[in-house]
This record gives sequence, C-alpha cells and structure tokens, in this order.
Amino acid sequence: MCRHRLARTVLLIAVCLCLNALSPLRLFAETGYEAWLRYAPLDDSTRQKYASLPASVTILGDSPVLHSAQEELIRGVRGMLGRTLGAAKGEPKESAFVLGTVGNVPGLRSRSDIGADGFWLTSGRINGFDCIIVAGNNERGVLYGVFALLSKIAHGENLASLDEVQQPYAPIRWVNQWDNLDGRIERGYAGRSIFFDNGSVRTDLSRVRDYARLLASIGLNGCTINNVNADPKVLADDFLPQLARVADALRPWGIQMAISVQFSSPKTMGGLDTFDPLDPRVIDWWRKKAEQIYQQIPDFGGFVVKADSEGQLGPSAYGRTPADAANVIARALKQHGGVVFYRAFVYNHHLDWRDPKNDRAKAAYENFHPLDGKFDDNVIIQIKHGPIDFQVREPVSPLFSGLEKTNQAIELQVTQEYTGQQRHLCFLAPMWEEVLDFDLRIANHSTPVKEVISGRTFRRPIGGFVAVVNVGMDKNWLGHPLAMANLYAYGRLAWDPNLSAPTIVDEWTRLTFGSDPLVVKTISDMQLNSWHVYESYTGPLGAGTLTDILESHYGPGVEASERNGWGQWHRADHDGIGMDRTVATGTGFVAQYPSVVAKMYESLASTPEELLLFFHHVPYTHVLRSSKTVIQHIYDSHYEGAEHAQQFVEQWKSLRGHIDDVRYAATLARLEYQAGHAIVWRDAICNWFLRTSGIADTKGRVGHYPDRVEAEAMQLHGYEPVEVSPPETASQGKAVQCPPSAQKCTAIFQFKGPAGWYVLDVQYFDQNNGESKFQVRVGDQLVDEWTANDHLPATKIGGDSSTRRRIPGLALRPGDQIRIDGVPDQAERAPLDYVEIRSEDRR
Amino acid sequence: MCRHRLARTVLLIAVCLCLNALSPLRLFAETGYEAWLRYAPLDDSTRQKYASLPASVTILGDSPVLHSAQEELIRGVRGMLGRTLGAAKGEPKESAFVLGTVGNVPGLRSRSDIGADGFWLTSGRINGFDCIIVAGNNERGVLYGVFALLSKIAHGENLASLDEVQQPYAPIRWVNQWDNLDGRIERGYAGRSIFFDNGSVRTDLSRVRDYARLLASIGLNGCTINNVNADPKVLADDFLPQLARVADALRPWGIQMAISVQFSSPKTMGGLDTFDPLDPRVIDWWRKKAEQIYQQIPDFGGFVVKADSEGQLGPSAYGRTPADAANVIARALKQHGGVVFYRAFVYNHHLDWRDPKNDRAKAAYENFHPLDGKFDDNVIIQIKHGPIDFQVREPVSPLFSGLEKTNQAIELQVTQEYTGQQRHLCFLAPMWEEVLDFDLRIANHSTPVKEVISGRTFRRPIGGFVAVVNVGMDKNWLGHPLAMANLYAYGRLAWDPNLSAPTIVDEWTRLTFGSDPLVVKTISDMQLNSWHVYESYTGPLGAGTLTDILESHYGPGVEASERNGWGQWHRADHDGIGMDRTVATGTGFVAQYPSVVAKMYESLASTPEELLLFFHHVPYTHVLRSSKTVIQHIYDSHYEGAEHAQQFVEQWKSLRGHIDDVRYAATLARLEYQAGHAIVWRDAICNWFLRTSGIADTKGRVGHYPDRVEAEAMQLHGYEPVEVSPPETASQGKAVQCPPSAQKCTAIFQFKGPAGWYVLDVQYFDQNNGESKFQVRVGDQLVDEWTANDHLPATKIGGDSSTRRRIPGLALRPGDQIRIDGVPDQAERAPLDYVEIRSEDRR
Repeated sequence: MCRHRLARTVLLIAVCLCLNALSPLRLFAETGYEAWLRYAPLDDSTRQKYASLPASVTILGDSPVLHSAQEELIRGVRGMLGRTLGAAKGEPKESAFVLGTVGNVPGLRSRSDIGADGFWLTSGRINGFDCIIVAGNNERGVLYGVFALLSKIAHGENLASLDEVQQPYAPIRWVNQWDNLDGRIERGYAGRSIFFDNGSVRTDLSRVRDYARLLASIGLNGCTINNVNADPKVLADDFLPQLARVADALRPWGIQMAISVQFSSPKTMGGLDTFDPLDPRVIDWWRKKAEQIYQQIPDFGGFVVKADSEGQLGPSAYGRTPADAANVIARALKQHGGVVFYRAFVYNHHLDWRDPKNDRAKAAYENFHPLDGKFDDNVIIQIKHGPIDFQVREPVSPLFSGLEKTNQAIELQVTQEYTGQQRHLCFLAPMWEEVLDFDLRIANHSTPVKEVISGRTFRRPIGGFVAVVNVGMDKNWLGHPLAMANLYAYGRLAWDPNLSAPTIVDEWTRLTFGSDPLVVKTISDMQLNSWHVYESYTGPLGAGTLTDILESHYGPGVEASERNGWGQWHRADHDGIGMDRTVATGTGFVAQYPSVVAKMYESLASTPEELLLFFHHVPYTHVLRSSKTVIQHIYDSHYEGAEHAQQFVEQWKSLRGHIDDVRYAATLARLEYQAGHAIVWRDAICNWFLRTSGIADTKGRVGHYPDRVEAEAMQLHGYEPVEVSPPETASQGKAVQCPPSAQKCTAIFQFKGPAGWYVLDVQYFDQNNGESKFQVRVGDQLVDEWTANDHLPATKIGGDSSTRRRIPGLALRPGDQIRIDGVPDQAERAPLDYVEIRSEDRR
Repeated sequence: MCRHRLARTVLLIAVCLCLNALSPLRLFAETGYEAWLRYAPLDDSTRQKYASLPASVTILGDSPVLHSAQEELIRGVRGMLGRTLGAAKGEPKESAFVLGTVGNVPGLRSRSDIGADGFWLTSGRINGFDCIIVAGNNERGVLYGVFALLSKIAHGENLASLDEVQQPYAPIRWVNQWDNLDGRIERGYAGRSIFFDNGSVRTDLSRVRDYARLLASIGLNGCTINNVNADPKVLADDFLPQLARVADALRPWGIQMAISVQFSSPKTMGGLDTFDPLDPRVIDWWRKKAEQIYQQIPDFGGFVVKADSEGQLGPSAYGRTPADAANVIARALKQHGGVVFYRAFVYNHHLDWRDPKNDRAKAAYENFHPLDGKFDDNVIIQIKHGPIDFQVREPVSPLFSGLEKTNQAIELQVTQEYTGQQRHLCFLAPMWEEVLDFDLRIANHSTPVKEVISGRTFRRPIGGFVAVVNVGMDKNWLGHPLAMANLYAYGRLAWDPNLSAPTIVDEWTRLTFGSDPLVVKTISDMQLNSWHVYESYTGPLGAGTLTDILESHYGPGVEASERNGWGQWHRADHDGIGMDRTVATGTGFVAQYPSVVAKMYESLASTPEELLLFFHHVPYTHVLRSSKTVIQHIYDSHYEGAEHAQQFVEQWKSLRGHIDDVRYAATLARLEYQAGHAIVWRDAICNWFLRTSGIADTKGRVGHYPDRVEAEAMQLHGYEPVEVSPPETASQGKAVQCPPSAQKCTAIFQFKGPAGWYVLDVQYFDQNNGESKFQVRVGDQLVDEWTANDHLPATKIGGDSSTRRRIPGLALRPGDQIRIDGVPDQAERAPLDYVEIRSEDRR
C-alpha cells in the first residue's frame, strides 16, 4: 500500500491520512489486496460527468473516524477522477464536500428518520457555496456515507440531485476471526493471522488497518479478533496493552474490537479456584477484568463466549445455565457499554449414535429456548444459521423462533469451512438470502429470519449479524480471488438484507474487476451458480456435506459422519439414506419449528426436495418429483456438478485479456484445481453409494472409466501398490507410491487408442508433508514435469490430497509408451492414482 | 523462463531442449523478456485453422542447430495452439513436420535457387504421409524456416498450400555488443552485461542463450561480444576457455561468436616489443593466436578492429595503412574461415576547429578510399551509416560509394546512443530504410546503399549488416519496452531490406502485444512518428543531435560540439548556423559523393531541407520552403516535437486495459518522462538560439513562461540559488539546491491564479549520485511525495538530470500556499528548477 512507509511514519497522523490518499494514483499490480476498493480510473466520458464536483472536502469536527472519511473521499476521487481534493476543516469557504453529523451541518434541516450509523447524502448551499453533503447520524454514518458516495461514482451514477437516506437494518454487524495467538487460524484458508504471531499481537498492524477499512466500506462495525476456542492468555494483564494496539488500529474505521474468552478464565488464568458464575468472587473477577480493559480500551466491544461446547468448559460444570454464565459477564460489561455474544453452538458431541431419537440438531433449541427471557439486555445469543454446522444445505435454525425475549444474532460463515475452503468457488449470498428470507411463521405471521434476528419482530434493543471471516496474510485476504465476494455480500446483506444476490454480485464484480459487460456477466453467472454446483457434487438433497467431518472438513468422507458421537449423521445404509427428524417416526426435531413450518417438514410430500434427507429417511428407490430415484439423483447430480465445475474453467478462459493477467492466472489455477477435485468428489460419493446400495447407475458411468489406466495396473519399477482408506477416495480403491527406501519410481504403460490429439490427466496425491516431483514422457520425449507443492489439508493419500495435472494437446499413436517418473520427498512418496486419456475431439 | 532450472540441469541435453519447449504453456507476467517470441495462445477460431496440422516433428540429422529448430517448433506450437508435437528423428513414420537440409529431405526435388541460410517451406507426401517440410540450404536455414513458419501461425496465415522460398539479402548479419569485461557496457542503457561480470565471463549464461535465440529468430548469424575499445585481456591464453563457453551458448542458434581486439595486442599483452603489421614476429603472433582460438572454438567468427581511432593505437604508429593492419589479421584467420571487421570509424579527434576546411565527415573516405583493392577477401570494412556518428540525421557515408573492390558492412545502432538512450521513444527503422534505399548513383546507375553493402553491386564475396545492440541484464533487454522494435527491425531489414518500416512495426507489434486493432494501430503510429518527433526537439534541419557530445550524449548541450577537436561542429554563431561542406565555399566533403549526389548537395536549393545545415551555413533569416525562417523553424519544430511527445502519453493511455498492466505501466512511465524531458530539450535549444541570434520567437513563446514560478524566486528556507552551466539547461539559468550543511530545505510560494483544477509540474534534477526526497504541500495538505532515484546519466544539475514530477488534478485557490520540502542525499542536494501550474481546462 504505502511505498514510503518508513518516511511516512515520522510524520504527523494528519499527514499520514493524506499520504494514504495519494497511493491509488500510482500503478500497482492487481494482487487483489485492494479488493473492491480499487478506485480504478474511470473512462474519460464517465469522468466528464463529474467535472463540476467541488474541489475540496471539509470535515465538521475532528476525530479519527471523520479523518478516515475525509481521507477516503480524497483517495477515492483521486483514484477514479485523477483529482486531489483539498482537505479542509470547519464550515466550507468554497464549494465543497461537507462531511459531518446531521446536527453539525449548518442549515441542514434536522430529521428524526436517520438511525444509528445511518447517513443522508444530499446537496445544498452552505454559507453561499454549493456543497455535496454527507451527513451522518453519527461519525460512523459519515464514514459509511462517504463509501456510498464513492460507490456511486464508481458506478457512474449522477450526483446532480442527490438526496438519499440509508441506514443499516440492524445495529450488530460484526465479524469474528478465529485467530490463535500463535498465528494459526482455525478454519482459515488464506495464510496466517493478520493480528497475532508467535503468541503476541503483531508489531506491524498495517494489514489490520486495511482490513478495518474494508469492513467499514461495507458497513460492518465490530470485529472479534481471536478464536472462539479461546486462549486464556488473551485476558492476562500484560496482554491488554497489546489488545489496545489492535483496538487503536480498528478505531479510525469505526470498528469496535471484541475478544473471545474462556468462560473458565477466572480459574484457568485468574487465580480463583472456581468459575461458578454465581460465586461472588467470580462476579467480582469479571467486574474488575472489565474495568481494567475499559481503562485501556474505552470503546471495547465485549466478549464472545463458547461454553459447554466441543470441550470448552461452561456453566454446566456448576449446574448453572447459559443465562447464569452470560449474565455474570454481561453485568461486568454493562456500565461500560459492552455486550456478550453467547454462542448457541452448544451440543453434546458424545451422543449415542445407536439411539434413533438422538439428534444434535435439537441441541441449540433445547438448551436456549427454555432460558428465553433470562438473559440480560446486553447479551446476544449468537446462533448459527442452521441447526448443525455450516453445511452446504441446512434448514434455518428453529432457535430463531424460540427466543422472543432475548437478543439474537445470526452467525454466518465467510470462511468456506464446509464449502470448499476457498479452493472451490462457492458464492454464499444466495444461501444467505434464502436463510434470511425464510419465513418462520411465528404465531402464523410473516416473520422472516432477518426481521427476527435484527430485533425487529420482538422489538429487541440489539441484534443482527455475525460472520466468521478468517482473512489471513495471503495478499488477496481469502486465498481465492473470487472469494472476497462472500465478505462483500455479507456486509451488504448485514446492511440491507433486502438486497438480492444478483444485485450484490453485480456491484462486487464491477468494483473488483471493472465494468466490461462480458466480465460482469461471466463472473456474476459463475458466482450465482457456484453454491448449487458445489452442493451438487458434495451433498445433494439435504444430506449435508458428505465430507470428512472429523478432521479436514474438506474432501469426500461419507462414513466419517456415522457411528460416532458428533451427530452429523445422514444414516445412509444398504437400503436408504436420510435422518428421520419427524415427530411421527423420527427424532422430533421438526416440532421445534412454529407449526406452519413444522407441518411442512413433517410431511415427506411437502418437504422441499433440497432438504429431503435432512428431514426424512427414504429408500434409495424413492422417486423424486423429477421421476428419478434418489440413488439416480445422487449419481446424476454428482456428474452434472462436476461437469459444471469444468465449465467454470471455460467460462473463465473467455475473460482472458478482459481482466488483468495476475488475477486471471491466479483464478484460473484455482478453477482448474476445482474442476479436478470435483471429479474426485463425484467418484468417491458415487462409488460409495454404488457399493453400499448395490444399485447401478442407469447411465453406466459409476464404476466404469474406460479412459483410465490405473497406476496399479501399469508396469511398475520401484512403485508399489497401496490400499487407500476410505477406498472410494482413490480410483478402484488403490494407488501406488514409492516405498521408504526408493529414490525414484517409475510407472509405464502403452497407449492403445487410435492416433490423434489427446488430453492426459495424471491423477496424483499432493500431501502437505513432502514435495514430490513428477515427470511424464511419451517415448523419450519429456512432455511435462511438476512439483507437488500445493498446500492441501492432507498428510496422507485420500480425497483431501487427490489432485490432477492436466497435459493438453498431446499427440499419441497406438503403441506409444507413456512413462511417469516420481521422485518422493519426505513423507510424500510420489503417490499416483491413475491416468485418464481423452481425445481432444470429445471435449 | 525455467521454473525448475535446478532440477533441469541434471538432465541430458535432449531433455533440456524439450523442457524449454514446455514453458510457454505456463503463465508468466509480461516482463518483456520473451520479446516477440511470446507464442501467446491464439483465439479459438484461429486455432481451428490449424486443427489438422501434423502431430509430430522429425529432424533429418542430429546437430545442436537442428535440435534448436525442433525444440522451437514444439515450443511455439505448444504456446500458440496448446499442442505438444511429438519429437522424432529420421524419416517420418506418420504425418509430420519434417525439418532438414534440402538434400536430406526424401523425395524433395533439388533446387539451386536457395542460397546460404535460405529455406524452403513446402508441403508434400513423404513415405506416404502428408508432411509440412522446412528445408534449409543449411542447418541455419532450417532454423530460420521454423521461425518463419511459427510467425505465419502467429499471424494466423493459412498453411494449406505452403510453397515459399526465403533467403537473406546478405551473408553478414551481425550484432556487436560493446560490453566491457568488468560488466559495464559502453553506451548500454539496460543494465549490466549478459556476457561478463567482474573481469570474467558469467557463470550463468542462460541469458546469452536466450539472446542468441532472439537473434536467430530474426535471421541474425553473428555476435561480437565485447567493446570495440577492447580489453587486451580478451586474447589472453587463460581467457580463451571462457570465450569458448560463450561460443557454446551461441552455437545452437547458429550465431557465430567474434571478439573485438586491440590492434596493439602483440605488444600490449603478447610479449613482443612491436605490433608493426609487417613485422614477421607480429605476423606469426597473430597466426598462432588464431590457431589457439580455433582449437577451442572451431566456428569462431573473427575479429573486430577499431584502430587509429579515439585513442586506440593503430598501424599509423608504424607508418602502415589500415590495409596492412587488416590483412595481417585476416591472413591469420583465413585458413580457419574467419573474417576481420575493420572499422572505418577512423578520424582525428584533435582537429583544429578554427580551420574552416577541416571536416571530420571527410575522414572515413579519405582514409579508406585510397586503399580500395588492397584488402584481403576476408576483410570487411565496417562503415557507420553516416559520416559522423549515429546522429539523429546524417546523409549516408560517401565511403559506401568509394569501395568497389573491398567488402563492406554498414554499421547501424540499435542502442540509442544519440537518440534518447531508450528513455525516449525512437523507432529507427524509417531512418535505416532511408539510408538503405539511398541511391548513390555510382557511375550514374541505380546503386542503392543496400545493394552496395550487401556486395551485390560490385559482386563482392561477403558483405552486409552490423548493428551495435547493447542489450543488458534488464529483464526486457533494452530498458524501454518499445525499444525492442529496433532490434526486431534491424534483423528483419538485414534479412530483407526491401521490407517497409510500417510492415515491420506491424509484425513486431502483433507478436509483442497481440493483434487488438487499437493496439496495433496506436503502437505502430507512435513508433513510426517517433524518430521525426525526437529529431524535431533535438536537432532539426540536419544540424546533428545538439547534445552534450563530450560525455553523456544525452541531454541538450549546444556548445559542446564547438570549439574543440571532436569535429561535430554545427558552426552556430550570432548570425547563422550550419557546416558549409560544399566544394565551392566549404570543406569540400560533398565531392566525396558520386557526381549526381554531389551535385544535389552542392546546391543550397537542391539539398533536402532535413539535411540543410549538414551541408550549408545559412543565416538564421534564411527562408525555408515553408516560408519560415530557419530560426523560426528551430523554435516551431521544438515546440511541435515536445507537444507530440506529450501526445505519445495520451495515445498510450488509450491502450489501458488493451494490453497487460505490467508493460502498460512500464511504458507509460518512460513516455511520461520523455514528455517532460522533451520540454527540457525544447527550452534549452530555443533559449540558446534566442540568446545567440537575438531574434525573437514570432509566437512569443521562447523566454516567456507565464505559468512558471522559478524556484529561485520562491521564499527559500535552507535552499540557496545556484547558477547552472550551461545556463540554458535550467529555466532562467538558475536553480536552487541545499547547501552541504542542510538536512532539509523548503521553498514556498503563493498561488495567484483563479480557483480551479490545476496540473502542477515540479521540475527538479535527479542526479545519479544521491537520492533526494521531495514533498509537496498545498497549505498543510501533503499532495505528493517522491524519491529522486532514477538512474539518469548525470552527476550534476543540468539538461541530463532535469526531470519533472507531474501532480495532476489539484484544486487551487488564490492565495493558496504551495510548499516544497527537499531532503538532500549525498551529492544530490534536492535541486529544484521551477514549478509550472496549468489549468486542467487548457490540456
């Protein structure tokens, strides 16, 4: 960002702000770091629209947030229009952009219809000068107004008769980062923490400042910076000054800082022998800790608490309730204005899977609904959008309808824990839109989720939105260049959940890649299809993501959900699949919903098919509305999804030359990987169900791969066959790899097809505990070589590590000898699965 | 280039060749390193044209050059068409590309019309298979044929009925590099030597190999690798093995290596007490040295000799002639097939400037014409294209018409020594085209220069082209991303001087930047105008480049040419300007030309105006055909040229998004610099002539700069005024700089114009002996800051170091205080010349 940071740091703060504003004029490679705030130069005709804009920007007041607003307007106008606005303070002395809170703008009529964080963009004469006015309900509103104004300019909108009020839908618009103090991020897929390293807050917090700016630009106002599985050290006396440095970095952008805390902290690090929430010493401990924090961080946001969940200790240790737990902390924060986010993700992960009545989905409602009304007014129950855990498809959590006298916030996930971990394209706004618009029919009235969680339905004082984001040190924040659309969409929906996913992705694409119609159409189309595509090859009909739920949450792992206490059961067996959650014959979960919704889910006939297996157990031969059986739907949807993933590659290739080369190449690499891994998914899931059900694919695809040559069937020198577990994660259940003693191994086979042009896919395994090297030869001619140095979440052969190298445009003749040499490295033994050879004519 | 170089080096050579062929498939940032050999993927419709191409390429023979040809075809087809051709040897066993010398291709009719290095592209059936045949007269011809074939594919040409013979116009198609053994390059503007470092040949010669490939791709066949001002060490016994390594790197691409040698070597490093060319010991020394070289480098090309020139010792020391000198070396090389390039750049640089008959332009002809017929058949007289030294405009050297029984080669310059040093855009093909097409009218027959130097006119056995190139370690070879067009054009003209500059630049642009019509049109237009533009602000009417000829050869320095022995006189004084070279009243140089040409130049009326001042001295009031006086033409042409340089920036900006960002930004930076430096040139030249002639610019521009605020007229804190020498290289002859004691200096002035949007240009000096820092504020607001860290050829304030920082889009109001802070560094004392403020409306 800053080319002369060293020189800059010696200057005053006011100067620093101006300097940041200078940077967009210079040329940078498109790394993705700027995200949707590129402020790329507009074309001349669009610039012409803005020729008569004021030449200066004045702020009415003097605070870090107002300075950020002024700096941002200068920066944005400079980038897009090539003009450096003069920076002024106080009432305008010439035609100007005027930034201030409503009451401070001279001559502006007061209006009561602008709520907290809202703003009014208007124009008018002040002191005789024509001005464009950004009036905020508060200073944060001014900042949001500036971003809105810049977005209008980026989209080329007319500012002539500006008169627009915007305000956020809900007061709580937060993000959570699951960052550990050692710098690792739980379920983070874009590098190490921007906050922490090696047990401390980072010295250089420039990325934290830039993250805060990104968050502010989409109207977000709070950030919890550490993992919900919290390190108790975060509350240590000597750590608080470090936290204060982070809060200082977030503050100029209107972002409140919060931290996750261990509920057991009074005991684990506080020196007490108890953490019983009703114990006076514990009450006092929390009170004193809060006071200590607020002395150093006056605008501290509060605490996030994960208790009695997945090994975290909680109030149950003393027979107390979550309300007891939340309130003891909330009361300590109350006088300082802080809040407690108490997570509803409380469930028993030692459930007896043999009991057909047991159901993890019921846990949140059972734990929290009885406590409705028992929570203090500065407690917010943070509820995951579905009853399980961020699966690719779930119904909404019934707990949203179970808390009428309690503040709520919905917890969404920008980090794609179960949806491809930013290696697969999965734009989640369409899912979130469905969740937020879902009508719970509480008391048989229209009660969409968004109205409930925002506090509107039951007139709760606070409520709103939380998303787990987990940006990292990767230059482009989230790893996949297209993944930032999820962060953008989250912020936009938290600001206005009535926005549609197509509108949001159109905005994001224009700001991120420019307004070339082909670019906008192609990327929007890919993004809007991507969730359904990912769903169709990973977990159709509401079965949940059929992944390895025990470790990676990434590749295929159908059986990982079953026969354990974690409760993500899909109950697939020889005859059928699905969790019967009906009242009549199942776990009774359906009864947690208001009656209209419950009635819909109770009946197989009225349950939407995309959630069929979430609510009902059916035989594989059950016939869907499409007239397909469930088993054939599973096969078909996996083939269609994998095919669609391949189409993403072709769609992206049509953009070559229409966007910058750097992001083009980075995105293409991810999409090509996804297309290959979608086939790994397809084959693993289909083969598992074929083996389990014994019912063949009517189209004859599953189990038949005429274009493949299995590695274990090749002529092997050094390589040894190995059984893969689970077997469906390698073709025919087998692979080959070098034994520990081998320096180099070779697999050879003869091509038997007719002469022609072929695409050769080498399916191999890329673990993260070694960097094997591969070479492919046709006859004596080396045609490709590569190093298996991706960082996939896998230390062994299987669905997480399976990947492919595509070698296109190969001329092959009958009898050609194809030879693969593998050089193993450390624990990665140059493992190979198969080679697939397809004629180019068939693409 | 190679992502896995380390792994690669352990493989066999044949494999290495194939590996290089793999790389274009991978994505690289566009650094310019690939130059015109990018082999960018063709669009799908163009690819379709080539769907039925053969799938393999076979070579008939086994040599490094044939392997290069095969590798290149694989690489090019893979890059453009995404297909990896099978590599084979011997007669085709399937439909194939067949590469071989004419006699080796089975069934191919023999034809006598293909000369050395020529090739025949055709198609036909061999052994029953349809083949595309690249048949060379020799192996080099095969290589050139492959490049021609790939160029056809890159341009989307149909290969269906291929039948085309091409052959080079002349046998000598060489480049010279003026590289010193310490790694510096004399008149090199793109970094350090790719051949040498620290007194030795580089360990890593990968760039030499890639340079050889570039040269081969345009049909060049020889390279002299060291400075003509040669280090005697280059002939030392222990250096020869190092030279052999370079020859090894060049050989696979058909490039013969030669070296420049000191003529005095027998004495300076050979242990003799003489270098008299007629001394038997000297004769023997050269013979033995040649034998020694050819033992290690069997295809060694020969020697380049600069003798009796600019301080280099020569045969005159012993009263011998250049023929004696050239022949003694030529005879030593003869039996091995080597040649001597003897440079005609022999002149007295201690000429008495007061003698109006003296004329450096006469030197080459006077020295060499009398020796015509005295040179051995393996001597080539290497003649600069003009009689002076690569000025922006010269007539052709009369020596071309003065050697009928002697081999010649024309010496051109790709490195832009006097034409902007790759910081200014100057495409030289239009100049070279004029030179090569110039009809000398020898014996009143049509005798264009190209026919003479190629040996055609006088049926000489050898002859042709040499260009000084001076590529360096800069990633893009020549520094300016558009400068490689000159190397490309040189190669193409050496191959076929009947090609036109527009044809060449169209080819180059398509290969280098792609075929977007806007890109092709814009870049072609800029390139084709650029020589004239550079001429018009640096040396109009044939006055020569009015630069500092004593040191940098870069910025303006009108008086540097005068009153010294170097003989680049333009004779400008109070009354008039121009060198009278007529027979009647001048130096008599004109008489060196054949009579028709001499007659044209003898008369003021028939001399082309672009060469007026080269041949005639005229008063400033002399009226040109345009009805302008000479002095007004000087003013007008400098203003028009500087304006046109500014237009290059705007033209380039129209390509944003049409080419890759990296080369876009790098080129834009150079063009913006050029636009600023063109104004430095304009003002220096115009003010010098105003001062000297006393005749005002009728348009009132020269000497009047109402938008400028001189630094010395600002309110200075720390800064001190300083006189600049020569005075015309700073505005009003003065600048300001920090005294040695100052840590920081400030210059302040008040803006007095009306409120509005302005462009502020800060004119400052960027020396190469320090990196000053500058900050500009309007009021308290920092609006720009930068470090003066360019590497201009200057250690002091003046026309070489003068440069500008443009700050666009500034809002200014009457009374605004503008403040510049300068922080000096080492010998560079943050020097400032002036600030110019112009309304944006006036752009």
